[in-house]
Amino acid sequence: MRAVGLKERLVYREDWSEPVAQAGEALVRVSLGGICRTDLELVAGYKEYRGILGHELIGRVSQASAVWLDKRVVAEINVACGKCPWCRGGGDDRHCPHRTALGIRGRNGVFADYVTVPEANLRVVPDRVTDLQAVFCEPLAAAFAVLEALPSDGLDVLLCGDGNLGSLIAQVLKRRHRLVWVGRHAHKLALWKERGYDVRTTLDSAERFPIVVEATGNPEALSWAQSHLLPRGTLVLKSTTAAERHLDLNQLVVSEQRVVGSRCGRFEPALAALEEGSIDVESLLEATYPLQDGLLAFERAGTRGARKILLDCR
Amino acid sequence: MRAVGLKERLVYREDWSEPVAQAGEALVRVSLGGICRTDLELVAGYKEYRGILGHELIGRVSQASAVWLDKRVVAEINVACGKCPWCRGGGDDRHCPHRTALGIRGRNGVFADYVTVPEANLRVVPDRVTDLQAVFCEPLAAAFAVLEALPSDGLDVLLCGDGNLGSLIAQVLKRRHRLVWVGRHAHKLALWKERGYDVRTTLDSAERFPIVVEATGNPEALSWAQSHLLPRGTLVLKSTTAAERHLDLNQLVVSEQRVVGSRCGRFEPALAALEEGSIDVESLLEATYPLQDGLLAFERAGTRGARKILLDCR
Repeated sequence: MRAVGLKERLVYREDWSEPVAQAGEALVRVSLGGICRTDLELVAGYKEYRGILGHELIGRVSQASAVWLDKRVVAEINVACGKCPWCRGGGDDRHCPHRTALGIRGRNGVFADYVTVPEANLRVVPDRVTDLQAVFCEPLAAAFAVLEALPSDGLDVLLCGDGNLGSLIAQVLKRRHRLVWVGRHAHKLALWKERGYDVRTTLDSAERFPIVVEATGNPEALSWAQSHLLPRGTLVLKSTTAAERHLDLNQLVVSEQRVVGSRCGRFEPALAALEEGSIDVESLLEATYPLQDGLLAFERAGTRGARKILLDCR
Repeated sequence: MRAVGLKERLVYREDWSEPVAQAGEALVRVSLGGICRTDLELVAGYKEYRGILGHELIGRVSQASAVWLDKRVVAEINVACGKCPWCRGGGDDRHCPHRTALGIRGRNGVFADYVTVPEANLRVVPDRVTDLQAVFCEPLAAAFAVLEALPSDGLDVLLCGDGNLGSLIAQVLKRRHRLVWVGRHAHKLALWKERGYDVRTTLDSAERFPIVVEATGNPEALSWAQSHLLPRGTLVLKSTTAAERHLDLNQLVVSEQRVVGSRCGRFEPALAALEEGSIDVESLLEATYPLQDGLLAFERAGTRGARKILLDCR
C-alpha cells in the first residue's frame, strides 16, 4: 500500500505491506491525516522513530467487530500494554512505560492507505463534524489538556505561540480564562483580534501573569515566558524540542513557581466542542496534499509560519 | 558592635555601627544565629549581597513597643514594601518584588550583637522551647513549606538529601506521608534508621515515586531525582545553587511531570512542632562558636557533611 514514513530518511513508497488487524484491533481506511510539529521533530531525529508517520487522522473502519464496521472514526494515539504494574495499578494509559503511540513509538502511523488501531482507541465522529474538522481532533484534545494543568477557572493567562497548537489552545482557554495571547506573526493574529482576542506581538517587560502557557515550539521562548511569570505562578510547557532550553531553576525556587508538562488530551471534550461548532479549525488550514505528494507536504509544513498541512489519503 | 558579614570578602569586625530601630521596628539582642547553606552561597557570590550575614536567630527584644519588650523572639526573614501593586493586591509578603530579607537582600542580618526587625515579623518563642531549638525555627519553617507544594497527604515520597534541611524535611514528611529517604552519608542516616525511617544510600534505578523532594543542594542530584519521578509526578526543589542544573524538559512534557519551587515557610507550624517536642533538632547540631570566631565557624560549616553550626552572639 501507499504510505509516507521514516526509513533512513523520509520516504513515500507504494510497496508498504498492508497491515493486518490483530485481536481487538480495527483496520481503518484513512481519509485525511494532519502533519504535526512532532512529525517534523521525528524527521529531524527526535526519538529515533522508524516506520509510517502520522497520528492525526479521520478515517472509516474497514475491518473490525460488527459494532465498529463502516463507522467514521478518529483514534486516541497511545496504546498501553495493559500488563505492567503501572497499567495494573490503574495508571493512565497515556503514561504506560511500555506504550506504543501511533506513528511516534513502536506502531505504524496514519499517513497511509490503511492503519490498524485497537478498537478501544476509536471514537465515532458525530455526523455534524466534517472530515476536515475531525482531523483536528487530536491536537484539539492536546489543547484541552492544558485545562487539566491549571488550578482553577477564571485566571489571567498569558499564551505564547500563534502556531496551530497555539491557536487551538487560545480558543480553549478563552472559554474559561482571561487570555492575553502573544505571537510573532501579526498576519495570523489579525483574524483573532477581529474576533475579540487580546493579541500582542510584544509585551511590556514588567507584565507578569499567574499562568503562562508556552506553546511556541521555539527553544528560545522559554526564558522569555518565565520572565513574565508571577511568583507562585504556573508555567505550562506544551512542546518537546530537540534543542536544549533554559529554565532558571534558582528563580523557580526563590519565586516558588511551578512548571507543568502537558501532552496528549482526551478526545471527548474535543469532539464535543467540534460538534457544537465552538472551535474554528478551518482557518488554521494551509493546504491539503495527496498522499503521494507527502514529501512536498512535509517540506511545506516545515516552512516558518505554515499553518496546518493535511494529507489526503483517499 | 561585633558582627560577621560580607564586605569585599567574609569578615568579622567589631566596628559595625549599632542599628537604630525605625518606626515599627524592634531592636533585638541576638542570642544565637545559625549558619545556613544560603549563607555559604552568598559568600560564594550568589546574589552579590553585601552586609551583615545571617537569617536564623533567637534573641531578646531590647527596644520596641511595650508589648514586645524583653520577649524571647524569632523573626520571619522577608520584609515586604507594603506599597507596590503586589502588596496592595494582597500578595504574599514573601514574594514582594521590592522585599528585603534579613541578611540576604538589602537588610543586615543576625550574626551580630544587635539586629533590627519589623515588629510584624517577630514571633514569641514559647517557654518550653529552648534557645537551641528556637534557632532552628527558620529552616524548620522552610521544611514545613514542602507540605504546601504537595497535592495531598498520604503519598509515597522520595526525599533526596541528608543535610540539615533534608533532616528537618524528613521529620515533617514522616508525619503525613510514606517516606523513602536517600542520602550519601550512612553515618548520618544511621540515627534515623534506628528511629524507624526507611533510609537508603542507593536506590534501584527502576524505582519511581509520585513525589520527589530534592534537598541535597548538589547540582548533580537533580537529574537523578527526576529519573525516579513517575509520570504525572511532582518534583519539589528546595535549593538554589550557583552552578547550573539539568532538568530534562522533554521528559517533563512527555511524562506530564511538574516541578515546584519551594522556599520560606511560615513560622507558626514550626514553633508549634518545637513546642510539642515532635521534631528533633538537637541531633543536627555540629558545634557552636562564639561570634568572634565567625570565620572559623563558616569554614567548618562549609566542610562536606557538616551538621548545623551556630554562632553564640551573647
